Amino acid sequence: MISKTPAPPYWAVIFTSVRTEGDNGYAAMAEAMDRLAAEQPGFLGHEFARDGLGISVVYFTDLESIAAWRKNVSHMAAQKLGRERWYQAFKVRIARVERDYDFERED
Amino acid sequence: MISKTPAPPYWAVIFTSVRTEGDNGYAAMAEAMDRLAAEQPGFLGHEFARDGLGISVVYFTDLESIAAWRKNVSHMAAQKLGRERWYQAFKVRIARVERDYDFERED
Repeated sequence: MISKTPAPPYWAVIFTSVRTEGDNGYAAMAEAMDRLAAEQPGFLGHEFARDGLGISVVYFTDLESIAAWRKNVSHMAAQKLGRERWYQAFKVRIARVERDYDFERED
Repeated sequence: MISKTPAPPYWAVIFTSVRTEGDNGYAAMAEAMDRLAAEQPGFLGHEFARDGLGISVVYFTDLESIAAWRKNVSHMAAQKLGRERWYQAFKVRIARVERDYDFERED
C-alpha cells in the first residue's frame, strides 16, 4: 500500500479533500480514475486514506506527466463532477520530492 | 482540517505508514507530537488520515525547520518507539511544494 517509488527527485500531487454527504457516483468514478491514472505515462504510485479528511498522494516522474494527466479528457470530466457534487472543499499541492527514506519491520 | 498554508514555495513532509496491531501507547504519543509539532518554528499545518494506510502531511516553511523538528529530543524518542512498536512499515518523503490551488463550495 506504500508506493514503491524510485530514488528522488520525482513529483507528488497531494490532494486533500472534504466530501459532501452521500456517494453520488463517487466510489465508481474514484475506482475508474485510480485505474486510469495508473496507466498514464510517468505514473509512479498512488496512496490514499480517508477518515473525515481524505488525503490522496499520486506520484509522477515529472511535471509534464502531471500536466498531461490533469488535461486527460476522462479526468477532466471527473474533476468537473468533483466540483459540482463530491467535494465540499479541496486543496491540491504539487511538490517535488527531494529526499525519502523508509522503514520495514524485520519480524 | 485542510491546512491553510501560505503561497508556495514551502515544504511538505509526507509520512505514509502501516501500523502494527494494538495501540501500545501510540494514540497518546501521537496527540502529544501533534501539539509539539505545532509549536515548532516554521510549522505551517498538519493533515492526517488513516484507513489501513495512514497518511500524515506536515507543512513547514523551510528545510531547516524540518531538520530541527526531526532532531527535537521528544520527537526523537517518539521516532524510536515508532520503529520499536508502532509501525510495520513507513516511508517519509520530503518535498518542496511549488504550486497549489483550492476549491470551496459556495453553498
